[in-house]
Amino acid sequence: MGRITLLTDFGTEDGFVGAMKGVLAARAPEVVVEDISHAVPPGDVRKASFVLSRYWSRYPPGTVHLVVIDPGVGTSRRSMALKADGRILVGPDNGVFTQVISRGEAVAAFALRTSDSLPAPESHTFHGRDRFALAAALLATGTPLAAIGDAISDPVLLPDRPNKRVGDWVVGEVVEMDRFGNLATNLPEELVRKAREVEVLGLMVPFCRTYGDVESGELLSLVDSEGRVEIAVRDGSAALRLGVGRGAEVRIQIPPS
Amino acid sequence: MGRITLLTDFGTEDGFVGAMKGVLAARAPEVVVEDISHAVPPGDVRKASFVLSRYWSRYPPGTVHLVVIDPGVGTSRRSMALKADGRILVGPDNGVFTQVISRGEAVAAFALRTSDSLPAPESHTFHGRDRFALAAALLATGTPLAAIGDAISDPVLLPDRPNKRVGDWVVGEVVEMDRFGNLATNLPEELVRKAREVEVLGLMVPFCRTYGDVESGELLSLVDSEGRVEIAVRDGSAALRLGVGRGAEVRIQIPPS
Amino acid sequence: MGRITLLTDFGTEDGFVGAMKGVLAARAPEVVVEDISHAVPPGDVRKASFVLSRYWSRYPPGTVHLVVIDPGVGTSRRSMALKADGRILVGPDNGVFTQVISRGEAVAAFALRTSDSLPAPESHTFHGRDRFALAAALLATGTPLAAIGDAISDPVLLPDRPNKRVGDWVVGEVVEMDRFGNLATNLPEELVRKAREVEVLGLMVPFCRTYGDVESGELLSLVDSEGRVEIAVRDGSAALRLGVGRGAEVRIQIPPS
Repeated sequence: MGRITLLTDFGTEDGFVGAMKGVLAARAPEVVVEDISHAVPPGDVRKASFVLSRYWSRYPPGTVHLVVIDPGVGTSRRSMALKADGRILVGPDNGVFTQVISRGEAVAAFALRTSDSLPAPESHTFHGRDRFALAAALLATGTPLAAIGDAISDPVLLPDRPNKRVGDWVVGEVVEMDRFGNLATNLPEELVRKAREVEVLGLMVPFCRTYGDVESGELLSLVDSEGRVEIAVRDGSAALRLGVGRGAEVRIQIPPS
Repeated sequence: MGRITLLTDFGTEDGFVGAMKGVLAARAPEVVVEDISHAVPPGDVRKASFVLSRYWSRYPPGTVHLVVIDPGVGTSRRSMALKADGRILVGPDNGVFTQVISRGEAVAAFALRTSDSLPAPESHTFHGRDRFALAAALLATGTPLAAIGDAISDPVLLPDRPNKRVGDWVVGEVVEMDRFGNLATNLPEELVRKAREVEVLGLMVPFCRTYGDVESGELLSLVDSEGRVEIAVRDGSAALRLGVGRGAEVRIQIPPS
Repeated sequence: MGRITLLTDFGTEDGFVGAMKGVLAARAPEVVVEDISHAVPPGDVRKASFVLSRYWSRYPPGTVHLVVIDPGVGTSRRSMALKADGRILVGPDNGVFTQVISRGEAVAAFALRTSDSLPAPESHTFHGRDRFALAAALLATGTPLAAIGDAISDPVLLPDRPNKRVGDWVVGEVVEMDRFGNLATNLPEELVRKAREVEVLGLMVPFCRTYGDVESGELLSLVDSEGRVEIAVRDGSAALRLGVGRGAEVRIQIPPS
């Protein structure tokens, strides 16, 4: 049967996603196609990499994840496919697979080559339709990766953003915000087991189990569904309340042991 | 085969829906999954209950409707599944099923229990992925409700908002607005058969058959597709024109019989 | 198996699309249903016609494209189905199929008639659910067009907007903008083979191969994925930069031969 998921920054309103789905329907009519999102902010490769990390390994092995956030379309940036933990991913080689590559196991990356089965794209501006959808259809219907790509060892990776130890503090930052205005950080769950609160903008924010542990409208911190420290406002937006976004400093004091 | 529909307030842009769909694909690969919407305003249980009433019984018996608008995630609010008119619904016990329970026939409600097949959630903040998607996958693949839940007789219901008779007027209110700015009321179709107009904000609004019965830009009232009186502006937004939303008074004078 | 695609201006947030999908699931349970978009601006028939042109013929023959942008619902406007290049299209007869009819081959148009299999609509305001979804379900499961419609020769068409030759200039206009702020024009690819730049608002915009050919933030023109001249800003919005939209004049000087 096979399954292909779609993540793009196309919006749905212009028909670009429709064109890609049409190619998939024509080339792989038996394959199930599922939308993840088409609402990634235009060209925001970093956000897409973060979003992808939430779902790619929840799908069963064999799933093909098609990811088209492609501001460099038509330039010399490579087209790419990779295999990680039994799942297949297809998209531009621009860093969008950073979190898959750095966290996945058994990762093998390939640059797509032009061939009879994957001819030169019809356009210079829409490789989602002309190249990546074709590749995804081939891969979801049994074509091996090596048949359409050449192994590469240097896929583009986004810069790593680790937290730092400074005295008895661990200093991290906001790495992403979600629709609810919750702020994800690069501080791991383990830290808050030793501490009771998180500092952001000079405010001490209590560490809780879930949103309902504080009154409506109050700030809290908690462990999010991926095991990271998150800053939130119950029934509200921490991003709006604090006026911060990506890169804002968040730190935790580790009690002397 | 089986079919699961999805209604959430997650947006698509953060990958939360992707994580839920991944769980469904892994646990129930043969089941068809359909998006209803992920654009319910964050935490708006009342809107979700209203939206659900538009589609749940249009689907064939056996369909599983997964509904995750869950501001109380991780608190003591119960997880719930119910059967109504042969359809199955899964989600938090917070009132989101009010219209199904009050209008459906043969309604049986269950609180989900933790068991081998439905283990304790992985997170305190994402039961859509860790609990409700699992339950939906089980129910869509043949697990009976009683095998994963305990019958309950007191599901949470949102307050009823009936219209009132005051002299020779029936006084109701706006209960919801839609994308077009059309205002749905709690006044039933039967009333307008006896009257010719509807009063809102002191304005007398003529009762018509459809939008095209007035000129572009004019106010009208009509029977909506669910048998309720609606206030609208042709090719425009009644909500913006009148500056009103939920709770605004709307009344109809019943001619003396 | 069969496949139905959906294009509407309903948004997803009110459950209208859910009601249509419920009808499709009940009437044609084996048919694959795919979302194209529900984000067409309310009543924007012209935009929908343009969007439809991007995908309808990418799908394989036999696909049923359901299109519900229907500001005239419940009036005397006809309900319509057509066959073009082996694909089937269903929706209101209001011009939304203009680009299919003017570009498609082997086009045959039908006005849907009321019959036992396609009874009079339940509502006057939601023919997407009560009429078009039913018709699409019938057509996707093998009912011939002639069984539910009468051939017509005068489908509604939107006005044509050709470019004009004025001296040694070809003068066209912006016909649509997309999510990225790219401006599509009615100037065909052939023109820019003879010229090096495009004029808009008195600015001479260089003609390039793709977005990455200029620096971030710079204006360019290029051939879009449909073979039309497009005005764009790399990593930005040409619509915002220039402050123009539909109807803005764009012209190209043709060198004397």
